[in-house]
Amino acid sequence: MNELRPACPLCAETGGLLVARGERWRVVRVEDAPSFPAFYRLIWNGHVAEFSDLDAAQRLECMEAVTAIERALREALAPSKINLATLGNVVPHLHWHVIARFDWDSHFPNPIWGETRRQVEGGAAARLALPVEALDERVRAALAAAQSPGA
Amino acid sequence: MNELRPACPLCAETGGLLVARGERWRVVRVEDAPSFPAFYRLIWNGHVAEFSDLDAAQRLECMEAVTAIERALREALAPSKINLATLGNVVPHLHWHVIARFDWDSHFPNPIWGETRRQVEGGAAARLALPVEALDERVRAALAAAQSPGA
Repeated sequence: MNELRPACPLCAETGGLLVARGERWRVVRVEDAPSFPAFYRLIWNGHVAEFSDLDAAQRLECMEAVTAIERALREALAPSKINLATLGNVVPHLHWHVIARFDWDSHFPNPIWGETRRQVEGGAAARLALPVEALDERVRAALAAAQSPGA
Repeated sequence: MNELRPACPLCAETGGLLVARGERWRVVRVEDAPSFPAFYRLIWNGHVAEFSDLDAAQRLECMEAVTAIERALREALAPSKINLATLGNVVPHLHWHVIARFDWDSHFPNPIWGETRRQVEGGAAARLALPVEALDERVRAALAAAQSPGA
């Protein structure tokens, strides 16, 4: 279950800007989607393709970490909506997208994979309530709090 | 948490062809996306917008039901990939998309919300390993088994 496959990009590389690293997963901020600056990915470290390849304890751990990211984004940014998705059609190595969406963003209410609806003058990152580096810190803290026994 | 809002379409209507109904959620098959015939939605009955609006026990129940749907689709159809997503940008009432994807489908490997890649001659439903009504029965049985105490 936790084997790595050298030909898989999410086995070979971190897969984004590293924000937090757990024993079984890591969280990165996606840097190649500037229209969506508050875009994080939880990547399962072991090479599994589907969510249901995880056992019950792993699924719980995975979704509680996803929830911690979601809550950090909601508290820091008050987004119009959170989008969660695990697709993996191109890279079938389990990863969860956690994306804060805003009614002013380039695609809203379309999915980020759909058609562009508008241009965002000055760039999307500048419209967030705090710099992305500070957001990373909030996400990191939320994940740490969710993992601590007294959480 | 479990209030209903008459103006919300997922409070007012079933939201698709009803496959299974639990106390806190229901599962429907999506009938208005013929390119993706193996497309189910788990809809939380109460009007909450975000996954993290659920408490821990509700999140667990929700994702275990999503997992049961996913497993039923994998076992019945051997799809190229399962896609899971909760977006809700248009209807912010918690619902999970569970979609079996195939390397021959109209959009693969694009998300279903992305660009079309090909035409599927004869229609997608005809290429599934079993009729959608039989698939519904597999999904219903998987959900029932996941809910029974001895599962």
